[in-house]
Amino acid sequence: MTELTIRPVRGLPELREGDDLAQMIRERAELEDGDVVVVAQKAISKIEGRVVRADEDEKVEVILREAKRVVRRRGSLVIAETAHGFICASAGVDASNAPEPDTLVLLPVDPDDSAARLRDRLRELTGYEVGVVVTDSFGRPWRQGTTDVAIGAAGIEVLRDLKGERDPNGYELKSTVIAIADEIAGAAQLVMGKLDRTPVAIARGLDVHGEGTARDIVMPAERSLFQ
Amino acid sequence: MTELTIRPVRGLPELREGDDLAQMIRERAELEDGDVVVVAQKAISKIEGRVVRADEDEKVEVILREAKRVVRRRGSLVIAETAHGFICASAGVDASNAPEPDTLVLLPVDPDDSAARLRDRLRELTGYEVGVVVTDSFGRPWRQGTTDVAIGAAGIEVLRDLKGERDPNGYELKSTVIAIADEIAGAAQLVMGKLDRTPVAIARGLDVHGEGTARDIVMPAERSLFQ
Repeated sequence: MTELTIRPVRGLPELREGDDLAQMIRERAELEDGDVVVVAQKAISKIEGRVVRADEDEKVEVILREAKRVVRRRGSLVIAETAHGFICASAGVDASNAPEPDTLVLLPVDPDDSAARLRDRLRELTGYEVGVVVTDSFGRPWRQGTTDVAIGAAGIEVLRDLKGERDPNGYELKSTVIAIADEIAGAAQLVMGKLDRTPVAIARGLDVHGEGTARDIVMPAERSLFQ
Repeated sequence: MTELTIRPVRGLPELREGDDLAQMIRERAELEDGDVVVVAQKAISKIEGRVVRADEDEKVEVILREAKRVVRRRGSLVIAETAHGFICASAGVDASNAPEPDTLVLLPVDPDDSAARLRDRLRELTGYEVGVVVTDSFGRPWRQGTTDVAIGAAGIEVLRDLKGERDPNGYELKSTVIAIADEIAGAAQLVMGKLDRTPVAIARGLDVHGEGTARDIVMPAERSLFQ
């Protein structure tokens, strides 16, 4: 690869249920084959109507409804497993960047499917084969701060398995799997920002065409050392 | 920001103890003020002589010597806390991309200091103020695959705290801290690769000048829900 560039898509309006996000992206960005379109979860949730009316006191109730399992709880902080298998704060429920006061945004029902539909619609409108990653900001157990990770994906290699490949000195890699989709999500966060309504970015220069989904990233319980 | 670009630095030789990595980078890349130079931990460890002779049978012994605490163990997989406070596989000890057979590469003794020294030397050679991030590939508890994270940093904002900022609709963010340095590390991994001797990349277009260190990212035990 010569270089990776990531550009924010500027000028998107506040999104509403039913909006044609692919059309809105197309009007504001030039796409090419092989581009990866990265979309913050809030944008997808809004166009899919995953917004509920709830005030601050009702938030915990909404979180527990969205949670399949509470993993840890301390005060108002709830770490929960979602129906998708993601383990994250508040089961993905969030008030920031919600469409109006006293509303909460929920995760998309099936973010991989959301990604696939956006990819199909972009192909229909532009003729280009792009990848799509839907992102959210997740905390991590032993490190401060959040990084954006992939909660939905279509048309990209989500995990790259280097097992059996050799390094320049001939050493055979034994168990090296890179979570490419999560690294793309984090990279895009660096240009998207949380305060200026730029929930979409375009990554160019990656060679990551593939057929993975973000569900592939979820660690199966039987393999997890940290259930 | 208009766009983020990340370019690999091509043509670096196999690195040896005592090498002037800043000089090698300077000869192969144009730098500018505000660039972030991202360096894989192996490159730093090699120039700092953090390589030990050990065959496959001795590997666990070396890992346990590098570990401050074993967090989980299953078969040959050891998740350990390092002296720096990082929790990662094999206490950061690795045979891949080692200089020769039957050698293991250890983490730098103080990767923040390594980053600061590389930054100082780059300033001395080029006159430019750049940030430096030293990266390693860490697994995550509930997600498959590794992402690169920052184990050393100098001259950059490592954590960005948005607490008190307002989203476009006026909602005040309560506890949003973004692990910028980890996202930069993951982004750079996308162009560095593990198989083709490109342990350095240059990120341009980020506005992340600051004074954080990677040690700031380590979650203090008393705040951790997952000790």
